[in-house]
Amino acid sequence: MPRIVRFHETGGPEALRLDDVETPKPGPEEVVIEARALGLNRAEEMFRQGQYVQEPVLPAKIGYEVAGTVQAVGENVTHVRTGDAVSVIPAFGMNDYGMHGEVVLAPAHAVVKHPEHLSWDEAAAAWMMFITAYGGLIDLAGVGEGDTVLIPAASSSVGLAAIQICTMVGATPVALSRTSSKRQALLDHGAAAVIATQEHDVSAEVHRLTGGTGARVAFDPVGGPGFAELTAALSKEGIILVYGALASEITPLPVMDVLGKHLTIRGYELFEITTDPARRAQASEFVLNGLDTGALKPLVSTTFALDDIVAAHQYMASNQQFGKIIVRVGP
Amino acid sequence: MPRIVRFHETGGPEALRLDDVETPKPGPEEVVIEARALGLNRAEEMFRQGQYVQEPVLPAKIGYEVAGTVQAVGENVTHVRTGDAVSVIPAFGMNDYGMHGEVVLAPAHAVVKHPEHLSWDEAAAAWMMFITAYGGLIDLAGVGEGDTVLIPAASSSVGLAAIQICTMVGATPVALSRTSSKRQALLDHGAAAVIATQEHDVSAEVHRLTGGTGARVAFDPVGGPGFAELTAALSKEGIILVYGALASEITPLPVMDVLGKHLTIRGYELFEITTDPARRAQASEFVLNGLDTGALKPLVSTTFALDDIVAAHQYMASNQQFGKIIVRVGP
Repeated sequence: MPRIVRFHETGGPEALRLDDVETPKPGPEEVVIEARALGLNRAEEMFRQGQYVQEPVLPAKIGYEVAGTVQAVGENVTHVRTGDAVSVIPAFGMNDYGMHGEVVLAPAHAVVKHPEHLSWDEAAAAWMMFITAYGGLIDLAGVGEGDTVLIPAASSSVGLAAIQICTMVGATPVALSRTSSKRQALLDHGAAAVIATQEHDVSAEVHRLTGGTGARVAFDPVGGPGFAELTAALSKEGIILVYGALASEITPLPVMDVLGKHLTIRGYELFEITTDPARRAQASEFVLNGLDTGALKPLVSTTFALDDIVAAHQYMASNQQFGKIIVRVGP
Repeated sequence: MPRIVRFHETGGPEALRLDDVETPKPGPEEVVIEARALGLNRAEEMFRQGQYVQEPVLPAKIGYEVAGTVQAVGENVTHVRTGDAVSVIPAFGMNDYGMHGEVVLAPAHAVVKHPEHLSWDEAAAAWMMFITAYGGLIDLAGVGEGDTVLIPAASSSVGLAAIQICTMVGATPVALSRTSSKRQALLDHGAAAVIATQEHDVSAEVHRLTGGTGARVAFDPVGGPGFAELTAALSKEGIILVYGALASEITPLPVMDVLGKHLTIRGYELFEITTDPARRAQASEFVLNGLDTGALKPLVSTTFALDDIVAAHQYMASNQQFGKIIVRVGP
């Protein structure tokens, strides 16, 4: 019997178990995948803790990302077949489908044949980071040539994806990081500039970099007191996409900046994109094109074995990674 | 020599003076207006205190709204002529043009012939309130049939204008007021419901009124701690237009609501509309149409004489008015 990752009560990484389950049978519009690599996300940490936008139904399956081989397909599935190398777009709730296990069931609309040159690790890492960044930057904010984009938490996988997408469309990505310890790595990854928020005045730096105009877009998963530095650094008619709430402190809204510069603040989740068939199709076309040409390249930080899933979640909590944490499955 | 309202230093209402000045001569694309009525706005109070988005150049002219008779026109002015009854759209900075005086100069693009059935008082009251509400509700938020709209500070002139515009387009205006003292007046004015924010749970009331959905739009000049009640009361994909900062307290951003419901928060000033020729034309067409049919009706709270301009500003600061404060000029 295949093993899958589950938790029977919410809690820390040690709440995760590897449970033996029956091999799933695909219903209509479902696909069974034999996993080779799993991608880990902050969303799963929050889900495990019972702090996610979805409340886990116990015992809870978990996981948004997998890459592997199609083992079986259900009725009405025509775009992939047994033996295909596939990966999965996060386009479902984890109470319905969990991707972390040896053999898992996925909804057909989420299953994609990725470019052949990607490794299993890269394929498992690609979708959450690039679709999240695409949805905020391209679908909602219309980022393009000439835009300057501020990227807090830039060394997260989504932050790194945002840097790549900005570069791909001719925009200027400015990475924000608390200290300068990851500065060189961010520059090497394509950031046009790196601002250490604990060491420099963000607004002054951004205005200097943009010839006094400010940045048109910020892509922020943090919030908290640093939010005011982002609004101060934005141009007139600027937009902040808020896609996470990593800060535990209150986020004061800088009303005078919001008013005087006609700023837009928009809460954003990738499911806006991935649960809408038309927008999901545009998103996956954009990302597949970038992966094909090499403009987009998933960055893998560290790999773990499935037996070490608890250690993998502990490592995620430690915040040391630069890019994606991957769990390898099988031979 | 005509008298105009000016201040030579920033401060309270008593900083205002009536100064004798030369009768202005119209330059190209300028109009000289002999005033009959002036409309007072919160923006002028802030300008007088040196707390407005524009810093006053001393001695400072003041005033966004006037109704009166054209006394002279400059070159290239063809849409109005001497003797026409006109009023003025706030589409300029007060350091360039001030409307409060006996004879004043206005830029031609701001001068409009209003419907003949309006009194001078009504014509001086119409433009700031209706264009401000139009710009936020119609131009930016696309309010229409079936929308529920939350209107904090509902008994302000812009709040009352928002109620009328919602009714005009088939939306449901829900008035928010601190206490229930203005409840009946707001219902009489067209509010579908009135929520006293100090007495009731705003979100619970709004969800009850909307069958559990929440309101799609809020139109907020206040901010402060009550902002969280607005985000809680909004529906998925809801939008808050922030067009003022009346609260002196910090405005905490409710990040989990913003994220989970994909809310948009948009800072808005009417100058976005009135300084763009195409949007200004659409706005004035909408408002003129509403004034013509009687769907929109300026509400005058109290009138003062020009000699009592200081008392008029004191009354505005006292916050007792329901609708617009008007200053009458001339015979």
